[in-house]
Amino acid sequence: MWTLTISPRFGETDALGHINNTVLPVWFEDARTPAFRLFTPDLNPKDWHLIIARIEVEFVGELFYGRDVEIRTYIQKLGNSSMTIAHEAWQDGRLGARGTAVMVHFDHDAKTSVAIPEAIREQLAQHLETL
Amino acid sequence: MWTLTISPRFGETDALGHINNTVLPVWFEDARTPAFRLFTPDLNPKDWHLIIARIEVEFVGELFYGRDVEIRTYIQKLGNSSMTIAHEAWQDGRLGARGTAVMVHFDHDAKTSVAIPEAIREQLAQHLETL
Amino acid sequence: MWTLTISPRFGETDALGHINNTVLPVWFEDARTPAFRLFTPDLNPKDWHLIIARIEVEFVGELFYGRDVEIRTYIQKLGNSSMTIAHEAWQDGRLGARGTAVMVHFDHDAKTSVAIPEAIREQLAQHLETL
Amino acid sequence: MWTLTISPRFGETDALGHINNTVLPVWFEDARTPAFRLFTPDLNPKDWHLIIARIEVEFVGELFYGRDVEIRTYIQKLGNSSMTIAHEAWQDGRLGARGTAVMVHFDHDAKTSVAIPEAIREQLAQHLETL
Repeated sequence: MWTLTISPRFGETDALGHINNTVLPVWFEDARTPAFRLFTPDLNPKDWHLIIARIEVEFVGELFYGRDVEIRTYIQKLGNSSMTIAHEAWQDGRLGARGTAVMVHFDHDAKTSVAIPEAIREQLAQHLETL
Repeated sequence: MWTLTISPRFGETDALGHINNTVLPVWFEDARTPAFRLFTPDLNPKDWHLIIARIEVEFVGELFYGRDVEIRTYIQKLGNSSMTIAHEAWQDGRLGARGTAVMVHFDHDAKTSVAIPEAIREQLAQHLETL
Repeated sequence: MWTLTISPRFGETDALGHINNTVLPVWFEDARTPAFRLFTPDLNPKDWHLIIARIEVEFVGELFYGRDVEIRTYIQKLGNSSMTIAHEAWQDGRLGARGTAVMVHFDHDAKTSVAIPEAIREQLAQHLETL
Repeated sequence: MWTLTISPRFGETDALGHINNTVLPVWFEDARTPAFRLFTPDLNPKDWHLIIARIEVEFVGELFYGRDVEIRTYIQKLGNSSMTIAHEAWQDGRLGARGTAVMVHFDHDAKTSVAIPEAIREQLAQHLETL
């Protein structure tokens, strides 16, 4: 599991008084940074090897401005060239949202998916859990 | 079907050169405005009757800055108190992304879901389609 | 003057019930698109010739979700290699915000500012006004 | 001085490969949180006493994804009912952007500015500096 603590930004609230739903995909992308680093250690966008195939977010409860949110991130499924990364957003001991992202290891020049290298796979496997 | 034309904003691109994946939930929320208007004709956030339960986005192809994107929106499923709204993002005749949002008709005071009023249901039903 | 009509997005509101202040720079960047097109007609980011040196926004009144906002954009000052673009955001006949952006014609390879070509200068000059 | 460390988000880059200019007002608002807390200790948006009158951002250099940014925040001017907060964004020992925000102590019911309470003024004064 990777953990990221986020202090919600005022502009991430909406007129209903809590965090807008479109913010969760942003926080979850932020929480995938440790996974990105396995593929691109210096996070140089010109040396990027992943594309995103799909995201899902389930809104379980409200999330508020003013208190930290903990994003817990796991590898849920590890395929040959793709993986499903799962996220949970916790605030004040309550689950506010959970979601997944399917990422594909991709050769941007050849425009094709490629197998995840074994060394990276081993590191990802250490974060393999069922939520 | 409802149609919304979006001119992508420069800040909606990312360092990979195309539209960042987190932008699609924003565009799709924007495209739900006609559905929002059925529940709150003047869109006054203090008179809001919907909450979002779930979103999904599938990234089919790249979307670019500089050319309009057409968001096509349908009602995919119409339940008693909830509905699934489906979206497609088209650019240059190609599908770039598609997704769904599950919205629930909600009583914010009673904190409970309530049946969609018949008059609204009839209007929503006119947009009921399979993508 | 260039005019852009924006339908505020729900996620652009904040918990105070109106449009968050950080949204105005986004709308104003969007409103500069016709100026961008003079330098890069197809808006291809790989053929970009401008950088931004400075922005200012003055918040005059509240802006709300649910009603269109008209962004009026002018050239306020036209220098040798730079220009000041001015914006006003109007809603319901009231000025909600105004601001400026200083853009510099820039050679990204040589990393230096360069004079605005005469043909582009003439077109920009047609939008030269005092707000 | 208040200090906030930000890890730039992938979606905060743009197609030019660095952080989009519209992100700086978002980071700077985030960096004003300690000042917000002086007026609203629990950050409850329903108990908010500030409005924003003006922002300025000067873009001094490029800011990149993949390395932390330190936002340094000071009180630059402390008036009767308003204050100017100044920000600097540093990355890798270089100044990338600086800016200011003018905030007004405001009575949202009476719709008028009110003097900053003495107890808060004393705390703000401890952060009074010239950048």
